[in-house]
Amino acid sequence: MRFPTADAGDGSDAINRGDYSATYVSLKTDAGVEGAGFTFTNGRGNEITCAAVRALAHHVVGRSVDDIFAEPVAFWRSLSADVQLRWLGPEKGVIHMATGAIVNAVWDLRAKLEGKPLWQLLAEMPTQELVSNVDFHHITDALTPDEAAAILDKGLSGLDDRRAELERDGFPSYTTSVGWLGYPDDKVRALTQQAYAEGWRAMKMKVGGPIDDDVRRARIIREEIGPDALLMMDANQVWDVDEAIANMARLAEFDPYWIEEPTHADDVLGHARIQRAVAPIRVATGEVAANRVIFKQLLQAEAIGVMQIDACRVGGVNEVLSEILMAAKFGVPICPHAGGVGLCELVQHLAVFDYLRVGTSLEGRMVEYVDHLHEHFTDPVRTRGGRYLLPTEPGYSATMKPASIAEYSFPEGPAWR
Amino acid sequence: MRFPTADAGDGSDAINRGDYSATYVSLKTDAGVEGAGFTFTNGRGNEITCAAVRALAHHVVGRSVDDIFAEPVAFWRSLSADVQLRWLGPEKGVIHMATGAIVNAVWDLRAKLEGKPLWQLLAEMPTQELVSNVDFHHITDALTPDEAAAILDKGLSGLDDRRAELERDGFPSYTTSVGWLGYPDDKVRALTQQAYAEGWRAMKMKVGGPIDDDVRRARIIREEIGPDALLMMDANQVWDVDEAIANMARLAEFDPYWIEEPTHADDVLGHARIQRAVAPIRVATGEVAANRVIFKQLLQAEAIGVMQIDACRVGGVNEVLSEILMAAKFGVPICPHAGGVGLCELVQHLAVFDYLRVGTSLEGRMVEYVDHLHEHFTDPVRTRGGRYLLPTEPGYSATMKPASIAEYSFPEGPAWR
Repeated sequence: MRFPTADAGDGSDAINRGDYSATYVSLKTDAGVEGAGFTFTNGRGNEITCAAVRALAHHVVGRSVDDIFAEPVAFWRSLSADVQLRWLGPEKGVIHMATGAIVNAVWDLRAKLEGKPLWQLLAEMPTQELVSNVDFHHITDALTPDEAAAILDKGLSGLDDRRAELERDGFPSYTTSVGWLGYPDDKVRALTQQAYAEGWRAMKMKVGGPIDDDVRRARIIREEIGPDALLMMDANQVWDVDEAIANMARLAEFDPYWIEEPTHADDVLGHARIQRAVAPIRVATGEVAANRVIFKQLLQAEAIGVMQIDACRVGGVNEVLSEILMAAKFGVPICPHAGGVGLCELVQHLAVFDYLRVGTSLEGRMVEYVDHLHEHFTDPVRTRGGRYLLPTEPGYSATMKPASIAEYSFPEGPAWR
Repeated sequence: MRFPTADAGDGSDAINRGDYSATYVSLKTDAGVEGAGFTFTNGRGNEITCAAVRALAHHVVGRSVDDIFAEPVAFWRSLSADVQLRWLGPEKGVIHMATGAIVNAVWDLRAKLEGKPLWQLLAEMPTQELVSNVDFHHITDALTPDEAAAILDKGLSGLDDRRAELERDGFPSYTTSVGWLGYPDDKVRALTQQAYAEGWRAMKMKVGGPIDDDVRRARIIREEIGPDALLMMDANQVWDVDEAIANMARLAEFDPYWIEEPTHADDVLGHARIQRAVAPIRVATGEVAANRVIFKQLLQAEAIGVMQIDACRVGGVNEVLSEILMAAKFGVPICPHAGGVGLCELVQHLAVFDYLRVGTSLEGRMVEYVDHLHEHFTDPVRTRGGRYLLPTEPGYSATMKPASIAEYSFPEGPAWR
């Protein structure tokens, strides 16, 4: 699936520009129930993740949902540790994103078969079953199964109250639609005014262009939102470590709440140095953190003050569960990455589950919100006053409308012909 | 290209089993000169790296070698930082391996056009030109261009003597052909005896199966090679951090020189903990280190005592140059990973360049040697008494024989029909 977003400058930042795309996986049961999952890509190259899904498909085609969830880690490893395909990662990049697309579809299918939104399926799941869905391989030095069980047991207390609260108020979020690098200053100002009027009190801008431009745009946004609203900054990995520290010294006057992706996403030690230098500004990262082992180290090194899980970068729901549990263990709030194609639809479930059963606090928790492409989903996100409303339909909100699939399939859809 | 290696148990270890394959890139000039490059894969999934090469091909097709090398970092970033494709990494996994295949082919072509083996082209290159081929983005906190230039200038001293030494004696190596997990004990013993008789005094065994089996096999090999020869162990990432420390306490009685890939390849902090615990045994890793930023951190964290660069995992010769220079800055010896398809052919050039111009010492330096598939290359490695003989033909020794290409192309070659 590919959507023509590049021309509008939507989604442009220091290093990414493209037509937002998704590798869309549909799993159909003999009874005709369909589970949907996907991974997000940035345009060209979506055919590569599609090829990776095809290479992994034999691990899921022909199996039953019951069979898969009887031994969920064995299933997950059949994808993530395939003896031939793992060489292409391991557990990173194209092959791992394809794993995520398939695993997400399996969870969507299960939630639909159980008639519950994914967040509810997870929040109500017995502790031992949740633990049995986590692959602790390579993270036992940070989180053991017993520690995970203790966190999940504790999360049962007060769960109904938290659920009632979310059903009433929704989940806090912030908007990234105001400050893409591709937008001119007047558009940034107008979008900031509009977002503030709509109720947003937390907004994110892109930085990582010429620093004087970043400073000028930060001033515009801070002028419009006043001193109390949160302003986040996102450098999309463009800076070197010392450059990040120097540039944040200049941008600090606009009181950023966090600096996101200040340097190379693999650079755990670099993030730790930056975090020590820019505190109390928080370092945030995660949208391209390749797997749970990267997150483990970011937590162990005290390199981040905000952990930005992604629904489609890692190996799907199972791996995200391990990340959410590690964040709780280390006391770092989760603010999921969203945007792209359908990422808002997915991560709302993960954030809600985190609050209901794991993190159990809304302090510092926000889900990213980007107002792109929701119209293509059968169960799109709904927001009110800067908050996500709780999804109510069964599944993982991953299903695209048949008309959108027909129109935007690439390259054969009418939109691309 | 795919070769039927799985049935023989060749290449089997704790986590990998497959038919050794390569995504083979051929760049032809209008004058008919051909540059060859490739990345190695483990069988299934080779079609995914092929798709990635096709997605990147437009960055190189139609350009001249002179044009590319006039601005080599700009060329390298056109591949590694493609605004749409980088999302699939960034700089890791399938998309980065495909970048490496193309970049390697460009260097093979250049070396052929200049009529020199790649090691010689690099060793004789002026310092500023070498520096201009390195992308220092995201590594300036570990190595600056000025520091790199100083290392390369110093490497000019005594270069002719070192070259004469290698032409006379060859380059030290070790063999991995004795202890694959797929081999029974008697085969391990027989292969060890044979390798020792052939002159090998450094051998590597696979570990990471049941620890009692690892202990038994280590005992067999140590019995056969005596106390003076080097025994290396390779766990192929299978252990958790504490498990690696515990298992190495048991294997220490066989006096291993290094433990390779003791845990997840992305776990810089884990490797650092293991290195502190198992010293003086050295921790070695690198064959799946995704990029220069992972190596940078392994060096900064003092997590490794041996750095195992790979010719095809990262973005080709340009990125390997940065890794070789960082290793010299931090004083860690390089012992390149080889085996697979054609990796021995490539890394010999890198190791020789390192000795001649960067590291300038043979202390602790060895190139891995695996006796597989050399017969398919037009300029195969040659060894004598456990040492690589210096390549003499122009290029990067990456060209496969036309008959092999015809026979083993997958899936259409006669070997696979």
